[in-house]
Amino acid sequence: MESIDKVQGIVEKKELLRCAEVSPAVIRRLPRYHRYLGDLIRAGKMRISSKELAKLMGVTASQIRQDLNCFGGFGQQGYGYNVKYLHGKIGELLGTDEGFRAVIIGAGNLGRALAGTHMFDRRGVTRVALFDNSASLIGSKIYGIPVYHVDALGAFCREHKVEIGVLTVPKEAAKSVADVLVKNGVKGIWNFANMELKVEDESVVVENIHLGDSLMTLCYEVKNRLSESVEEKNEDIVHI
Amino acid sequence: MESIDKVQGIVEKKELLRCAEVSPAVIRRLPRYHRYLGDLIRAGKMRISSKELAKLMGVTASQIRQDLNCFGGFGQQGYGYNVKYLHGKIGELLGTDEGFRAVIIGAGNLGRALAGTHMFDRRGVTRVALFDNSASLIGSKIYGIPVYHVDALGAFCREHKVEIGVLTVPKEAAKSVADVLVKNGVKGIWNFANMELKVEDESVVVENIHLGDSLMTLCYEVKNRLSESVEEKNEDIVHI
Repeated sequence: MESIDKVQGIVEKKELLRCAEVSPAVIRRLPRYHRYLGDLIRAGKMRISSKELAKLMGVTASQIRQDLNCFGGFGQQGYGYNVKYLHGKIGELLGTDEGFRAVIIGAGNLGRALAGTHMFDRRGVTRVALFDNSASLIGSKIYGIPVYHVDALGAFCREHKVEIGVLTVPKEAAKSVADVLVKNGVKGIWNFANMELKVEDESVVVENIHLGDSLMTLCYEVKNRLSESVEEKNEDIVHI
Repeated sequence: MESIDKVQGIVEKKELLRCAEVSPAVIRRLPRYHRYLGDLIRAGKMRISSKELAKLMGVTASQIRQDLNCFGGFGQQGYGYNVKYLHGKIGELLGTDEGFRAVIIGAGNLGRALAGTHMFDRRGVTRVALFDNSASLIGSKIYGIPVYHVDALGAFCREHKVEIGVLTVPKEAAKSVADVLVKNGVKGIWNFANMELKVEDESVVVENIHLGDSLMTLCYEVKNRLSESVEEKNEDIVHI
């Protein structure tokens, strides 16, 4: 028995090692796998081949096998992946079972939209409070989440050991609110204030959302498609 | 004079050629330049060196010179870029002066948030209408944008030659709304419905927004930083 335990220990260590070496590029792709696997679970599909998953996600099966290789032998030939297991393992690596707590600062349209989604729960993140400075909102609940005055933010984060702060405040207020978060132990800032937030504390991560950049990429692509179709039409004329 | 014109013609052709060869990676980075340059204009800064811009954007000056190389000789040594000119040129390449028209479908929290931002105007996109199926909203205006019934969407897009549709509808409704858009001439879909939208018409571009993926990346980074700081603490204990 001891030797089997030893072997298993080595195997486990080996798998952990392989996962520790996951490249940043794969890490960036994992949330997308996690999302698809979550959808499959909700649709009642418990097993999927790399080929099926590849088709669904619009990538090659070999890419999938490479990306998911580190999670061990869950993709045996002809057997497929155990969807729930893989979903759980990817989630574990990404932090869904860390029990992170988040606060949303700013209860405007975007803050409300974020309060109303499943996005957080599905990633194991609990939204414990909203903060605003509008007197009419303080003391109310939005989608069940209590709204407090922003002056209480620091003390709240310390007391409730909040790890994540979601900034939906105006650009001008973002830096000062972020400073309060960082000073009170928050380790991750999800920034929707449409400016690139820099914090001095290197142990704090900032994820800046720039929807405008995405809109511009879309405009560029639309512009290109429109000019292509004009070119095609002109070619048609030449051929006639 | 003729020979000078000829030379200028060649130079212009050369510059156009250089711009035609802008790599997809650079294109992806251009919206960020556009955003920073827009902020500089609003702050009244009309000229900036590649060194200053590099510091501001947290990249190297040589990366900036390489990326902006295609826009011609606007970054002479010791003279710097003409901010407004460069902003305009990048915008032109990305499509800000195409006069694109957009409709937002879904007047919930997210639709309202998008109706209330400067994001569209700053990229030359006019939001001409919102669509919803809630009787209480039809006929009202949100941030000055009229709200119509979603049944009128197709005819409206055709009549007003709408190029861009912004989807903030529930996941289940996204595909059918997208089909109406595509059938009525819309060329770009900005999809917030939290599913990867596929349209059959290859001349239509879809830009899917997955905020949840960004949240997961943030969780992963926070998890890593927290475990790093635990490791550091343990090391401290060993050293004592």
